[in-house]
Amino acid sequence: KMLGRVLCTVLFVGAFPSPAETSQGHISVVLLGATGDLAKKYLWQGLFQLYMDQVSSGHSFTFHGAALAALEPGQRLMFEVLKKLSCPPDEAPNRCAVLKDQFLKLSQYHQLKTAENYTALNREIETLLRQEGLKEAGRIFYFSVPPFAYTEIAGHINSSCRPPGGAWLRVVLEKPFGHDLQSAQQLAAQLAGFFREEEMYRVDHYLGKQAVAHILPFRDQNRQFLDPIWNQHHVERVEVVLKETVDAKGRTSFYEQYGVIRDVLQNHLTEALMFLIMELPGNVSSAQEVLQHKLQALQSLWGLERSSAVLGQYQAYNSQVQEELQEARGYVSTTPTFAGVLIHSDSLRWEGVPFLLTSGKALDERVGYARVLFKNRAYCTQSGTLRDAGHSQCKPKQIIFYFGHGALNTPAVLVSRNLFQPVMPKDSWKEAEARSDLHIFGQPLSDFYMYSPVKQRDAYSVLISNIYHGRKDFFITTENLLASWAFWTPLLDSISRQPPHLYPGGVENQHLLDFEMVGGGVAFTLAEPAELLNPSEQMPSDFRAIQSKFRQSPLVSAWAEELIARLASDMEEAAVRSVARSGQFHLALSGGSSPVVLFQRLARHHHGFPWQHTHVWLVDERCVPLTDGESNFQGLHRHLLQRVRVPYLNIHPMPVHLNRRLCVEEDGGAQLYAKDIVALVANASFDLVLLGVGTDGHTASLFPRSESGLEGAPTVVLTESPVKPHQRMSLSLPLINRARRVFVLVLGKGKHDITTLLSRVGHEPRKWPISGVSPSSGQLVWYVDYEALLG
Amino acid sequence: KMLGRVLCTVLFVGAFPSPAETSQGHISVVLLGATGDLAKKYLWQGLFQLYMDQVSSGHSFTFHGAALAALEPGQRLMFEVLKKLSCPPDEAPNRCAVLKDQFLKLSQYHQLKTAENYTALNREIETLLRQEGLKEAGRIFYFSVPPFAYTEIAGHINSSCRPPGGAWLRVVLEKPFGHDLQSAQQLAAQLAGFFREEEMYRVDHYLGKQAVAHILPFRDQNRQFLDPIWNQHHVERVEVVLKETVDAKGRTSFYEQYGVIRDVLQNHLTEALMFLIMELPGNVSSAQEVLQHKLQALQSLWGLERSSAVLGQYQAYNSQVQEELQEARGYVSTTPTFAGVLIHSDSLRWEGVPFLLTSGKALDERVGYARVLFKNRAYCTQSGTLRDAGHSQCKPKQIIFYFGHGALNTPAVLVSRNLFQPVMPKDSWKEAEARSDLHIFGQPLSDFYMYSPVKQRDAYSVLISNIYHGRKDFFITTENLLASWAFWTPLLDSISRQPPHLYPGGVENQHLLDFEMVGGGVAFTLAEPAELLNPSEQMPSDFRAIQSKFRQSPLVSAWAEELIARLASDMEEAAVRSVARSGQFHLALSGGSSPVVLFQRLARHHHGFPWQHTHVWLVDERCVPLTDGESNFQGLHRHLLQRVRVPYLNIHPMPVHLNRRLCVEEDGGAQLYAKDIVALVANASFDLVLLGVGTDGHTASLFPRSESGLEGAPTVVLTESPVKPHQRMSLSLPLINRARRVFVLVLGKGKHDITTLLSRVGHEPRKWPISGVSPSSGQLVWYVDYEALLG
Repeated sequence: KMLGRVLCTVLFVGAFPSPAETSQGHISVVLLGATGDLAKKYLWQGLFQLYMDQVSSGHSFTFHGAALAALEPGQRLMFEVLKKLSCPPDEAPNRCAVLKDQFLKLSQYHQLKTAENYTALNREIETLLRQEGLKEAGRIFYFSVPPFAYTEIAGHINSSCRPPGGAWLRVVLEKPFGHDLQSAQQLAAQLAGFFREEEMYRVDHYLGKQAVAHILPFRDQNRQFLDPIWNQHHVERVEVVLKETVDAKGRTSFYEQYGVIRDVLQNHLTEALMFLIMELPGNVSSAQEVLQHKLQALQSLWGLERSSAVLGQYQAYNSQVQEELQEARGYVSTTPTFAGVLIHSDSLRWEGVPFLLTSGKALDERVGYARVLFKNRAYCTQSGTLRDAGHSQCKPKQIIFYFGHGALNTPAVLVSRNLFQPVMPKDSWKEAEARSDLHIFGQPLSDFYMYSPVKQRDAYSVLISNIYHGRKDFFITTENLLASWAFWTPLLDSISRQPPHLYPGGVENQHLLDFEMVGGGVAFTLAEPAELLNPSEQMPSDFRAIQSKFRQSPLVSAWAEELIARLASDMEEAAVRSVARSGQFHLALSGGSSPVVLFQRLARHHHGFPWQHTHVWLVDERCVPLTDGESNFQGLHRHLLQRVRVPYLNIHPMPVHLNRRLCVEEDGGAQLYAKDIVALVANASFDLVLLGVGTDGHTASLFPRSESGLEGAPTVVLTESPVKPHQRMSLSLPLINRARRVFVLVLGKGKHDITTLLSRVGHEPRKWPISGVSPSSGQLVWYVDYEALLG
Repeated sequence: KMLGRVLCTVLFVGAFPSPAETSQGHISVVLLGATGDLAKKYLWQGLFQLYMDQVSSGHSFTFHGAALAALEPGQRLMFEVLKKLSCPPDEAPNRCAVLKDQFLKLSQYHQLKTAENYTALNREIETLLRQEGLKEAGRIFYFSVPPFAYTEIAGHINSSCRPPGGAWLRVVLEKPFGHDLQSAQQLAAQLAGFFREEEMYRVDHYLGKQAVAHILPFRDQNRQFLDPIWNQHHVERVEVVLKETVDAKGRTSFYEQYGVIRDVLQNHLTEALMFLIMELPGNVSSAQEVLQHKLQALQSLWGLERSSAVLGQYQAYNSQVQEELQEARGYVSTTPTFAGVLIHSDSLRWEGVPFLLTSGKALDERVGYARVLFKNRAYCTQSGTLRDAGHSQCKPKQIIFYFGHGALNTPAVLVSRNLFQPVMPKDSWKEAEARSDLHIFGQPLSDFYMYSPVKQRDAYSVLISNIYHGRKDFFITTENLLASWAFWTPLLDSISRQPPHLYPGGVENQHLLDFEMVGGGVAFTLAEPAELLNPSEQMPSDFRAIQSKFRQSPLVSAWAEELIARLASDMEEAAVRSVARSGQFHLALSGGSSPVVLFQRLARHHHGFPWQHTHVWLVDERCVPLTDGESNFQGLHRHLLQRVRVPYLNIHPMPVHLNRRLCVEEDGGAQLYAKDIVALVANASFDLVLLGVGTDGHTASLFPRSESGLEGAPTVVLTESPVKPHQRMSLSLPLINRARRVFVLVLGKGKHDITTLLSRVGHEPRKWPISGVSPSSGQLVWYVDYEALLG
């Protein structure tokens, strides 16, 4: 305590500018975990850099290292670190030495363990400010501590250390921020109890890497060149890659919980990708606009499926886990240490352009980059000229944001010379000398305009500077974080049981980790060699669709994703056959949420589906305007129709909205639809009707004890639903039963009870309308996923 | 005459097999132009090859050379040629010598000039057959004569030389078959007066080139590999290329009439392309199926526009023309000697895949090939492996049908080793040794599986054999020919005034002929250097849209294609602005033929058009079912709506078909449409209405002296057209005049009179409804092409 006081006095004398020079006020920086690895390696150096950069800014500073250790040993440890702070090469040595001296004087250690410690810290800051006559500008609390400690520390800060009056509070958080959507939501909710959104700075240090941080400014400053080509028509693919040579040895207790996707792809690579693909805001220095556009880009991504990723694990990993975690010899880890993921965006700009995210440990080299490869749109008439000229339009065209390491060993921005000479800010990026001996992506460096930073700054220096400037676009907002987890979690769930492809590690990997885009997903090019295969009896061999009987009809069952894939293929096959037979395919589709994944799969993977000859009918509809989000037609349109080419006149929404009113008996909408069916569908026999099942046994919009539609004529009826919107229009059971094929899709645990019930009961449509589905001369097939079937 | 008789006798004794061995009958081959260049170079050798191949087939042969020269000099000339016939390397020398001796004995010369000559020839053939007791199998007449002589010769053959009874007649014709659609139709019609379709064999000697002839068998034999990848999802581009080093010197009198497109692209390159892109028939040896699929492929191609081609002319060409054709010094030829053409197919299989056809004279090398380049769908994790392994999936993947010459100097089929090892017929194609020193398309030959023919056969030998076998799929049918001309003629018309890009010739061309795909068309990469530019005052500088006034409103005028491009851009701009202002764009479109090109242009070139936010309305409709080909909506759907993504509920066809009847007043269709407009379009003011003008001054479906729609309320009306179908539905003039913008498109010479008239008359909507178009607060712009404006 005494030392602290003494220090402060010393500080003031030696380092504080006079109050007149500090009109901007005082900033207290508290580094929690001040003696930890990250602090030693980057954070203190970053704070020192901040001090050097901002010493004349009008702000005054104090730096408070904090940890659990008692004062005396903590102080010693911390000043060990501070002594070693280095002067950057671009700083004059004399000035730096003076500033380092001042910085040491402005820094002190605190033990922060109990509530009292926090109160004491707060008191000290206040006392100092009062004594020195300083106005308080704000406080930065940097959490360089394990996430389990977050809530406790956050509580203390919130209750004891908030600056008074108009001064700001900024808390800086380090990942991991949860390990899936649910845990991230929990953590976010807890933190939200203590801090306002604008007070939180979640660090993804990739956003501080110079090449990543320059993506948006580059796009902004080169709009004239990029505007015409930054789209699906010109971009062939985007790759974001982080390759490491190290493995997880010594860190398996962390790694085994996370794996490469949570460790690198969910955060670093996703963030870099967003900078590349987001719509460029009018003003790239508006943090709010940037964050909003980034969020939109995240939300535009197609959902990931198991086939979206290839996963690998270096061969030694499993024994490292066994050893370090003291697992039994038979233990098999399925944690991926390598992942390649194919991502697509739904936006008009990027439709169809593959984004490939790749990262792994124990690879052949250490390198990170984001690369935009353009399509070759040229024909070069003279064959020899392909090689010799830098201007040949037939050479590859690419823009590379090189994060560092690798062949270049520096952050860099590279633009193929046959693209354009980029505009770069001269004060921060300089043109690099062409080292003729180096090749990058198979081309000599002389094929590129290459720029490297005038001053190399490490990511944490950049980020600490941005915390100081309150540039929130360099950090991860809660919305952004949750959107990213929402995107990645389904994939993480679906691969949790999947054994990764083993690879030897290092250059021996050869082609083992090459992968290809196939049928909307990715797959390793080479089958896993038998000798590398780990006999994995623990893995359930349950990924195959099983076939059996259900209610006397064929049953196809599998995990949901596999089941949907099978159903989509069966539908395509039925469509192709119908078109071959009659020139048309009359398909009646149900609404609701279950078929959404099916619709998406049909749109994305089934390019051979004869949509041009398909008529799309609705099985049922809610009595809302067709433009309403609740409308079955809207869902069908959004997920399927707007992505495939069904001719306009082959689309048959139900006429629930006539004469500006909804499902009024006298308007005769149901009869109109029935007439259309009779006029267009031979024998009113649909080629395929797709149905679902409700937990109450309803199907289509035919509910238990419905007064119409369960028996009688093959027609279209108005019905009442027990849930809102109550009014519905539906095909009747007799009409459904005229179909050539009826496929019933049942998904999810929630349907387990009704599935079990249905397996036992007979034909009782008044109790369970679905039990009345029994095509008179057509085929009925049940597609039931394991969760619905087995609970 | 005596000599002929004597020869025949000699022939019989020495060369004819006994009648028992000739059960297949006798074939007479008549080569017209027997002493011409083609005959000397290829045809006699081809006939000799036929004889060698078929001498034991059961057929007997005689060969009749014919020309205009008298008997004695003709005989001498012809036997000079025959003496030099060579034995192919794969033929045993002894056998060949014997057969050559026999072949000479079976060959005789005839003067064919007058009708009597033909009668005499016929008599001689009949006499010979009778004397030798031979049954006649058929007669082949090979026209190796200039096309102007075709009809006369055809007439003589038809009237005097048809074989009697069941024997067949085959006439073989050499290109050119016309120089545009019209002339080709004329020639085809003339020939059809003399020969049946199945009697005509139009030669495109490319179909006899071994690598071209093997395209279909290759696709057939490798279906298992190609089926999944032979489509838009896997193919990046298709190139068909014929490069020549020679120029047109000495042949400019021919070349100046034709140019490179007529000489090479319309026939050779198009045919090779069709073999690549046609749907593969179930049975590739069925000539009928092949021809039918080829025709469908031709018909699936998008129409060419001026921007579809880049054109060049080697620098010396113009002076060669001046010299050889004795043109004045100021004469400027616009005949292209180089062309690169971008072709697209509308088929589901090839949608979006660029087909590049390129050919030119005075280039750096002589080579011909058809190349299918596949997309790179792989990511290769280990960077170094890109170079060293033949199996890397990241190397280019291609299939090349190499016609000959060039680096390989042999016909060949090449398949990248990272694709698959192809199935090849062992009797006719052998795997070639990998010459490690050779590179092709930037890759070492060792990267390919390469096959070359076991026996190299020149194209004419292959074709003569196919004439003998009656394989019509190796020849160009009338339908095929006309479809090809129908495809090429619009481009030929539109470029006839365009000055080609000059190039020096040879290796000095460097990058001058490199071109790129830009905005749906192609353009040279380098602007033409000023020093090469030919000052071409003769060229009208009329390709620029001119702007002026018409009826007090802005007028945009240009040649049709340019005008359409401008109109489409203006529409996109209007759409973007409307969406920015109100979130929507309400567009009312007219039917008819003029807007078709506009619709196509919008669909193909305007990827930034905000279709998602556009509502499409009809200006007018014919009272026919919407499924009828006559329906305006059908045209709009076919050319525009099915190619862009307008949401279903934003499409507003006119309700001409209600209660299963058409435009009945009581059904209230017009009122229904008006209500929809009022409900959805703010203030019933369309953002843009596109109109046309009829020769009678009608616009929309508002005809002169119409009883409704010309004045009164802004509504929708039923009207009567003077032409069928009489009943129409139309926006009224007052409704049109509420629009924010009205664009009127007037195209073609046929509209010149009404255009002239309209420039003079005032506001007289009852006489000329179009004169009543005058938006009350919106903008009116006229888009009138030069033909309509200037006649």
